[in-house]
Amino acid sequence: MTPETSRYTAAGVDIQAANRTVELIKKHAASTFRPGVLAPVGLFGGLFQLTGFKQPVLVASADGVGTKLKVAAALDNYDTVGIDIVNHSVNDILTLGAEPLFFLDYVAMGKLVPEQVEAIVRGLSQACRDVGCSLIGGETAEMPGLYAEGDYDLVGFIVGAVEKDKIIDGQGIRAGDVLLGLPSSGLHTNGYSLVRRVFQIRGREDAPRLRQYHLELGRSLAEELLEPHRCYYHDLKPLLPLVKGLAHITGGGFEDNLPRILPSGLAVTVQMGSWTVPPIFSLIQKLGQVDQAEMYHVFNMGIGMVIICSNKKVSRLTQALPSAKVIGRVVSQTEENRVIIKS
Amino acid sequence: MTPETSRYTAAGVDIQAANRTVELIKKHAASTFRPGVLAPVGLFGGLFQLTGFKQPVLVASADGVGTKLKVAAALDNYDTVGIDIVNHSVNDILTLGAEPLFFLDYVAMGKLVPEQVEAIVRGLSQACRDVGCSLIGGETAEMPGLYAEGDYDLVGFIVGAVEKDKIIDGQGIRAGDVLLGLPSSGLHTNGYSLVRRVFQIRGREDAPRLRQYHLELGRSLAEELLEPHRCYYHDLKPLLPLVKGLAHITGGGFEDNLPRILPSGLAVTVQMGSWTVPPIFSLIQKLGQVDQAEMYHVFNMGIGMVIICSNKKVSRLTQALPSAKVIGRVVSQTEENRVIIKS
Repeated sequence: MTPETSRYTAAGVDIQAANRTVELIKKHAASTFRPGVLAPVGLFGGLFQLTGFKQPVLVASADGVGTKLKVAAALDNYDTVGIDIVNHSVNDILTLGAEPLFFLDYVAMGKLVPEQVEAIVRGLSQACRDVGCSLIGGETAEMPGLYAEGDYDLVGFIVGAVEKDKIIDGQGIRAGDVLLGLPSSGLHTNGYSLVRRVFQIRGREDAPRLRQYHLELGRSLAEELLEPHRCYYHDLKPLLPLVKGLAHITGGGFEDNLPRILPSGLAVTVQMGSWTVPPIFSLIQKLGQVDQAEMYHVFNMGIGMVIICSNKKVSRLTQALPSAKVIGRVVSQTEENRVIIKS
Repeated sequence: MTPETSRYTAAGVDIQAANRTVELIKKHAASTFRPGVLAPVGLFGGLFQLTGFKQPVLVASADGVGTKLKVAAALDNYDTVGIDIVNHSVNDILTLGAEPLFFLDYVAMGKLVPEQVEAIVRGLSQACRDVGCSLIGGETAEMPGLYAEGDYDLVGFIVGAVEKDKIIDGQGIRAGDVLLGLPSSGLHTNGYSLVRRVFQIRGREDAPRLRQYHLELGRSLAEELLEPHRCYYHDLKPLLPLVKGLAHITGGGFEDNLPRILPSGLAVTVQMGSWTVPPIFSLIQKLGQVDQAEMYHVFNMGIGMVIICSNKKVSRLTQALPSAKVIGRVVSQTEENRVIIKS
């Protein structure tokens, strides 16, 4: 049957485009395969043989890129969002001490454009290779009527593993421990609905303006806003034995993410001014007239990962991680609020 | 900060609704926990201790519900789509012989409605409990501007495990083997873009019409179209040693799904008339003026799962599965087309 006579094509779903997409992305996925991957992409599931662990605990996480996708689409750039979702996911499971094993992606588009999916998967594959993670499966869906033409969603699913006795769950954290902040590469993948509003980003008509050099940023807004989410895996992996807790600072900022690893009865203070807030955040705050408390609740403010460690481990960690800054302390909880941001 | 003064809320993202959603769905997720789940939902990843396998191979799959979601939304019904995605995913990894271990979901909405997310997760949890699968994590995203208000997407990620020497990968399939078809419960989760066009389903204004009793179907279109995807796990699990290959008949029908498990050089014939095609398919074909070849390429046509087994296992399998029908044969491949549907 030709596409011209197909009712399914007329209804907006193009099985041939779907098959061509599968062909285009195969080689990228294959480039990520590490020992353990048992079968090529194409079966009804991806296969990964788990070896080398005595008491393996699997650590899994699902996440999306959020509306950073809309900014990328406005700039017709599909190369970096795959990196974003892999790095976001790797960081999430790293907080529990896990090494990444494999990844699956979900891409949904209003109208399937195989070359756009290929660019996304190329980015995914690059970021996967960087941390030894295998892209063993995924789903590409064409959903006319659910997504507008040009719109899409990207979701990532990661599975890693950690020895049971090496899980980092924050249970050893005590009052007096120290918070070390590691710099983010920018906005990472959070707060983009607000960002789009502040910078009035609606679609491709805004691309020329976003590509202009911006004095306060030292580069264009386009470059700043599409900077990939930083991956902390290689920096932190060798240092995990020194660490009591790790918090990935994503949506909800310090306020929502630090309590996820704090034992009950404890709180943290975060001292403003103990690190340099990058100019993109001040720019958003100023242009959007966003109040400071909200800035800290929506954005990472320049700190993408927080290490909690005992006082005596601080110097070893900052020696190994020269960009890390002491940004706060663990204290006994005295009020409902468990994250006290001090100005 | 009150929602009234929040710029993020004004940009369409409501962190308070997100937190309320997490509270609402916790108990449903917890109801699915089997031994092996190590931590409550809330950390940066879900933890699952893998025990009881000698040579564990993990089997993972990612999938969406497609535009069946739009039909469910038009009917204001969020109870069944979670069942759909879990059953779809369980079937996918079952084709490789795997038992489900854990599941993660991704729900994205234009405007987050905590009660709708709760209904979805209630369905997910029910279907997970039915097969002993633990819902250990997920992500709920509010993405104004990417999804219209009332629109949403739902994606599922499943991980199961199988002993390495018990993987079902179709490599034992030989010419002369038999195809046994197991009935679907209806459309399952495929072809809904065409279905929506054929039945002119745009939104809630169509709900009263869809809820009317339909003579040819013996029930309403609403009931027919939202019938959950059938799960084959309990039927097939005890019979896996008798099986050479399993194909889950989803998007792309027999034509795209059967070749996924066929060794090279082999093809299959599928004999029309060897099972009863349910009335919903004839109705779509007639109303949509869809040609028969396309019907078989878009829909499951009443067969949701195909077993490939040797001739001598047929009677044991049909005895255990009275609804199974012999629908075709494995043959040597003589033309490019590997799935020959005979009328």
